[in-house]
Amino acid sequence: LDTGIETPILQEVSELHPADIAEILDELTTEHASLLYKYIGKEKSADILIELDEDVRERYLDSIGAKEIAETFIENMDSDDAADIMAELSDKVKEEVISHIQDEEQASDIVDLLSYPEDSAGGLMAKELIQVNVNWSMLKCVKEMRKQAEDIDNVYSIYVVDNQQKLIGTLSLKKLLLAPSTAKVEDVYFKDVLAVKAYEKSEEVANIMEKYDLVVLPVVDELYRLIGRITIDDVVDVIREEADKDYQMASGLTQTAESSDHVWALSKARIPWLVIGLMGGVLGSLVIENYEGQIQIHPEMAIFIPLIAAMGGNAGVQSSAIVVQGLANKTMGFDSIFSRLFKEFSVGLLNGVLVSALIFGYNLLFSDSWALSLTVSISLITAVVFATLLGTAVPLVLDKYKVDPALATGPFITTLNDIIGLFIYFGVGRLLYNYF
Amino acid sequence: LDTGIETPILQEVSELHPADIAEILDELTTEHASLLYKYIGKEKSADILIELDEDVRERYLDSIGAKEIAETFIENMDSDDAADIMAELSDKVKEEVISHIQDEEQASDIVDLLSYPEDSAGGLMAKELIQVNVNWSMLKCVKEMRKQAEDIDNVYSIYVVDNQQKLIGTLSLKKLLLAPSTAKVEDVYFKDVLAVKAYEKSEEVANIMEKYDLVVLPVVDELYRLIGRITIDDVVDVIREEADKDYQMASGLTQTAESSDHVWALSKARIPWLVIGLMGGVLGSLVIENYEGQIQIHPEMAIFIPLIAAMGGNAGVQSSAIVVQGLANKTMGFDSIFSRLFKEFSVGLLNGVLVSALIFGYNLLFSDSWALSLTVSISLITAVVFATLLGTAVPLVLDKYKVDPALATGPFITTLNDIIGLFIYFGVGRLLYNYF
Repeated sequence: LDTGIETPILQEVSELHPADIAEILDELTTEHASLLYKYIGKEKSADILIELDEDVRERYLDSIGAKEIAETFIENMDSDDAADIMAELSDKVKEEVISHIQDEEQASDIVDLLSYPEDSAGGLMAKELIQVNVNWSMLKCVKEMRKQAEDIDNVYSIYVVDNQQKLIGTLSLKKLLLAPSTAKVEDVYFKDVLAVKAYEKSEEVANIMEKYDLVVLPVVDELYRLIGRITIDDVVDVIREEADKDYQMASGLTQTAESSDHVWALSKARIPWLVIGLMGGVLGSLVIENYEGQIQIHPEMAIFIPLIAAMGGNAGVQSSAIVVQGLANKTMGFDSIFSRLFKEFSVGLLNGVLVSALIFGYNLLFSDSWALSLTVSISLITAVVFATLLGTAVPLVLDKYKVDPALATGPFITTLNDIIGLFIYFGVGRLLYNYF
Repeated sequence: LDTGIETPILQEVSELHPADIAEILDELTTEHASLLYKYIGKEKSADILIELDEDVRERYLDSIGAKEIAETFIENMDSDDAADIMAELSDKVKEEVISHIQDEEQASDIVDLLSYPEDSAGGLMAKELIQVNVNWSMLKCVKEMRKQAEDIDNVYSIYVVDNQQKLIGTLSLKKLLLAPSTAKVEDVYFKDVLAVKAYEKSEEVANIMEKYDLVVLPVVDELYRLIGRITIDDVVDVIREEADKDYQMASGLTQTAESSDHVWALSKARIPWLVIGLMGGVLGSLVIENYEGQIQIHPEMAIFIPLIAAMGGNAGVQSSAIVVQGLANKTMGFDSIFSRLFKEFSVGLLNGVLVSALIFGYNLLFSDSWALSLTVSISLITAVVFATLLGTAVPLVLDKYKVDPALATGPFITTLNDIIGLFIYFGVGRLLYNYF
């Protein structure tokens, strides 16, 4: 591709699905991408723009004028996608683009949407929807829907509003097809309708749509007037991002990092947790330094330092992951914090006893120091139980105080439990070596 | 609730959304649940059954007969949900239930669906869909759709088939509304349609629907004949499960564990990785035992054991998480494995030098041993670089050999890097103490 793009290749590429073309464009230089863009129709290039990587899109939009952005792209997009793209532009360019939009209704829709925070229902919704008045007949519905449908690619739901534009129900397509054309909407519409307020958090929107298996969800203002709708494909991105974010935190990454990012971005995402891990290591070294005399007399104690530290870390991460996932998926049930801690105490004790028994058996066979064998096993049980309880309690407490519980997973809980494990190990060791 | 359920409460609960009722039922005893069930209409109880926790559902279905299962539940469900429920029953009960289904077409649909693996497109799809023949007129379409729609709750897409039942396109509702009633389907239908084969893996289905922002996806057989459709709400569960699975693996959980599970289940999900961590700890102890003489002479070396081990572990988990997520989200770009490793080498070196400089500064201030300060810093760089490379290579190699790359994250990569870190630390230490 670097040797220049031939016309036949251009032709072939331009017939692919927008999402596929976007993937190819992400890998090309800006000049090659512009070249390719010229071969593609307006509506399709708008679809492609939405699918591009954010930084590629930014570079491309910087290279063209506000007029072209408005005419080639924004005017061929649904209002939600247009608003998303506009939100990425600088305020100056944004104003210019808006002034170039021919369709005044679309311009006003976009300005409306830009007023909502990105992570709210308003930030996810599109303005395009089909609505019918409760007093209309089926015939009138079909007539009005024909008008409305001109702007809309897919009809997912037909919303029923009253004379104040308040959302009062939905009309199923099935009913529209089955009812006689003289029937009134009020006789056949479905009165139960779930809706969200425009300022609802997008995670909450995702939870509602997932829980109730919804494909589309209407958005209302404070007076319950219908102002837009959210489709599940936009929410899938929210769900994916949320799950990815928890996974990244658990793995010690502080920001979204993709393996295609540059070295500097990849490094920056990892440094914070590495430094925190380093500080944890320093604290751990202070604990051990405190017991240096003991190690000089019993150097064999050093042997099991990594084992105790690692096991505490593992047990803590396991518990915290269960809590974080339970909170994210709302599958925590109705247990109180104390009954939950008691349950985790049992799990920790059970697992602690099991692994301690294993290591005790191992030491019986290969070690000749009773003091060491007992120290390792007793401190292992204690460390695992402690780590399990901490792993459960810390995310629950964070969640209670509205801090993201995922912060408590991964490096943080591992480091904390490393240090506690070391304290327990040397404390138990000092005690036991006096007796044996 | 344990003191018995009052009728007014029953009344109120029965008016909630099925998903909410299911959440309440999950927390009740089987007798209370049965009591509540009697108050709820047939169609609604079918919707509730689908939303119940699997073990609660199993207990409930065991308590009623095959005839009741068929008449109360299966007959009021879409074919995909019915097949999912049936798949959970024993073969004997399954046959009995099928024999009790009155609607023969539904029974045959369910038997069809049960023949596909659970994690395939066929296992996700439903049979209910709206299809029109390419030769029909709009008027005939509306007439036929009226018939078909009786079985269907929501119409997402109208599929166009030829005389051989082969899927050849879609008819948008918009076109149906806008076109004159004498127009033929062949003049207005949309010829580009994405479909999947019935035996396609469900992860692949999820990837396709996510990438192309689809709400519904038709399923075809080997001859491209239309046999069903998958809606995004079922795929959202696949996406969620997949993301959860990677997160659980990274956190050292071997199976889905929810905090509402029993102690035994919670313990079982954690034991395997704890035992593997224990074996890693034992291997680590063997490494240190090997250098016990050195620790006796220089007990201060023990101080930084946990720091080196933890930092290697952290760096490894960070790299592997980026790779695993890149593979799951298909955002790896087109780099070769070597250019990727070279990039990670740079990142590891950068981060390694930074944290080593920090700890070197710390040791300059607080330690009087040049040998120790140099040993810690040099082995820290080396351990971080090694861990970064391993964290990148292992999941890539696993993926190449069709093993789930998520296996390489969490406890496994941490443990491996713990051991390697210890080797490096004592190796470097032995070398440097000869010179200082």
